Amino acid sequence: MTAARFQRLRQVLEFRQPDLTIVTDNVHKSRNLSAIVRTADAAGIGGMHCVIPDKDYKAFRGTAMGSHSWVKVARETDVTAALTPFKAQGYQVLAAHLGEGALDFREPDYTKPTVILMGAEKLGVSSAGCELADAFITIPMMGMVQSFNVSVAAGIILAEVQRQRQLAGLYKQRRLDDEVYQRTLFEWAQPKISEYCRANGLAYPPLDEDGELLDGLGWQLAVREGRALDV
Amino acid sequence: MTAARFQRLRQVLEFRQPDLTIVTDNVHKSRNLSAIVRTADAAGIGGMHCVIPDKDYKAFRGTAMGSHSWVKVARETDVTAALTPFKAQGYQVLAAHLGEGALDFREPDYTKPTVILMGAEKLGVSSAGCELADAFITIPMMGMVQSFNVSVAAGIILAEVQRQRQLAGLYKQRRLDDEVYQRTLFEWAQPKISEYCRANGLAYPPLDEDGELLDGLGWQLAVREGRALDV
Repeated sequence: MTAARFQRLRQVLEFRQPDLTIVTDNVHKSRNLSAIVRTADAAGIGGMHCVIPDKDYKAFRGTAMGSHSWVKVARETDVTAALTPFKAQGYQVLAAHLGEGALDFREPDYTKPTVILMGAEKLGVSSAGCELADAFITIPMMGMVQSFNVSVAAGIILAEVQRQRQLAGLYKQRRLDDEVYQRTLFEWAQPKISEYCRANGLAYPPLDEDGELLDGLGWQLAVREGRALDV
Repeated sequence: MTAARFQRLRQVLEFRQPDLTIVTDNVHKSRNLSAIVRTADAAGIGGMHCVIPDKDYKAFRGTAMGSHSWVKVARETDVTAALTPFKAQGYQVLAAHLGEGALDFREPDYTKPTVILMGAEKLGVSSAGCELADAFITIPMMGMVQSFNVSVAAGIILAEVQRQRQLAGLYKQRRLDDEVYQRTLFEWAQPKISEYCRANGLAYPPLDEDGELLDGLGWQLAVREGRALDV
């Protein structure tokens, strides 16, 4: 890896927003999920949650999602289970849903810890999802068609989230804690070695400023001789 | 047609922005074109232009585009030919393109007569398209991925266009001239009869307040006896 590439990984990790996520509620076209993951990355979201009740649903495991190495996508089967941990941590849940009292999507304060809840292609947010929402948000529409494509709607909302967070200076300093930052940086820079370490319960070895192992040969030897650091 | 439905057609036509359009420059995936048409409708765009050089390209004729009865989509084969008439009328052409000196997409004044030029899925705006652009616009991205899905990018830009035009009061009063307004209203309310009239060179007969023919039987008789008004 070049020093410039490694620098780019570090820069993007410094933009990551640990208190911002997306939960998709029964969105199942993989091209929509894929476009949402891509947009999430652009807004600095490091992890999102896709609720798809059908345990056997296959498309999710395909290339569409796999290609997104930069955003961790957790698959869930129940929207209540997906949202509850965030509610417990004090996140506001904003559901993109044309319900009673829905706010214009530019009204909420997105600098707070926030979950954006996006509903299914035709049905919108489920009633279980709506129940856990702190507010509904909508995008004004001046045409005959009554809804946006779900990935377009997510893009419009996240552009506003990003605008507010940029104004508030939330991309100006690193927001991930040191442990998460170092771990993710290693996994991005050395995906194969990190996989090997996780499979074998080994701690990640230190990197040099090009993102390569600081002492690659020494570490390989240590692994072979059972001297590598355990987690 | 119910009076409420006819009222809705009139209301949406009152939002239409005759000095705003989208030109797509080699966007080919019909699902992307389809999502862009849907978003255009939501921003009050009544007509857009899709440049696809391959004359035999088929997907364009499929349901994806046909389902959008509310936005007229003109198929073109050359981006220069598509843009030149707008340039001649004084429209600004803003290309979604990460070129030198590109502006943040929120900077331009979208209340002016405007063409938004969207580029192809991987290649972006063509060099011929860039040459005719008055400015390049980009959407800030804080992640590893370097571009948005084209329909997501169009949605983010059009949401800003709509915001500015709403603030400027451009959706508050009808902006279509009377001839276009009446003609389009008839075509939306009576798609089959309008098709028959166009095929036979007949003027559109007057409508009542439910959007039905004011004197349907009289008009049918006039058509049969060759007395219906010619265009």
